[in-house]
Amino acid sequence: MTADNYGLLQYIRVIEDYPQEGISFKDITTLLKVPAAFERTVFELADHFRDAGVTCVCGLESRGFIFGAAVALELGVGFVPVRKHGKLPYKVISEEYTLEYGSNTLEMHIDAVNSEDKVLIIDDIIATGGSALAAVHLVERLGAKVAGLGVVMELAELKGRQLLEEYEVFSLIID
Amino acid sequence: MTADNYGLLQYIRVIEDYPQEGISFKDITTLLKVPAAFERTVFELADHFRDAGVTCVCGLESRGFIFGAAVALELGVGFVPVRKHGKLPYKVISEEYTLEYGSNTLEMHIDAVNSEDKVLIIDDIIATGGSALAAVHLVERLGAKVAGLGVVMELAELKGRQLLEEYEVFSLIID
Repeated sequence: MTADNYGLLQYIRVIEDYPQEGISFKDITTLLKVPAAFERTVFELADHFRDAGVTCVCGLESRGFIFGAAVALELGVGFVPVRKHGKLPYKVISEEYTLEYGSNTLEMHIDAVNSEDKVLIIDDIIATGGSALAAVHLVERLGAKVAGLGVVMELAELKGRQLLEEYEVFSLIID
Repeated sequence: MTADNYGLLQYIRVIEDYPQEGISFKDITTLLKVPAAFERTVFELADHFRDAGVTCVCGLESRGFIFGAAVALELGVGFVPVRKHGKLPYKVISEEYTLEYGSNTLEMHIDAVNSEDKVLIIDDIIATGGSALAAVHLVERLGAKVAGLGVVMELAELKGRQLLEEYEVFSLIID
């Protein structure tokens, strides 16, 4: 079931029992350090959605900022940060979600996107899909369309794709 | 004393009394939404250090990730996230610092940079300079050199530049 079509899996470091026992954490900092690997990641995420009419990219705090902002520049569109509770300074809308280990809230500025927008949502990892679905809900509550979701790595056994079956989910690595 | 040589100040939204009374918060999300403004920001930050022998870019969590990762790609070097306490999964070194409103700890992976590296540190805003100086100390404790610091906006009255006088600080906006 593992798919590594872009040769990027070798750059991901696995940290066992982080942040708690039994979790095999995927560390993407080792990918970011290798310029060719980071460039390829950003290029392929952007390229997959190049003809999808994307008007802006949303990145999920914090690691989604790293990839999302770069993908936005590659596509020539604006970048919108989707942040955790209390981090955005202007008026926000909020969505709570559960994740692999705990729960959280994501927020967007109320003027971040509107009904003219078609939004690409970017994050590093898709696990249960909870945070990605929360971002989808935020985008749709603001009246925008979701063009799809792009992630570096999908943890297939956690079945995040099922939660997002109405949307296109593009993963560079499936593991 | 205001300098806005790249015409970017118009894209920064000011939020009064955030995160607490008396603080005029500079909201960079409005700049990120305008592709030409975001592109210009990244290009100018990178271009200033293009011949400085930079081998990697460090971005400070979280808004520094947005600009730092894009600057790294523009310079063709790797990106290293400097994160708040407890966010990096591998072995870290830590530095505590005080900031405009509170205190915090920044961390880097012990293998993020080494004595071969010349590091460009990127963040959105320089205020008192505390977080930037903490990042400088982390980079130097790992044996690397600091090529300089690049920020979108410098809040001149908070005198961060004085704290960093041994280093080159490049700001696109001084206000």
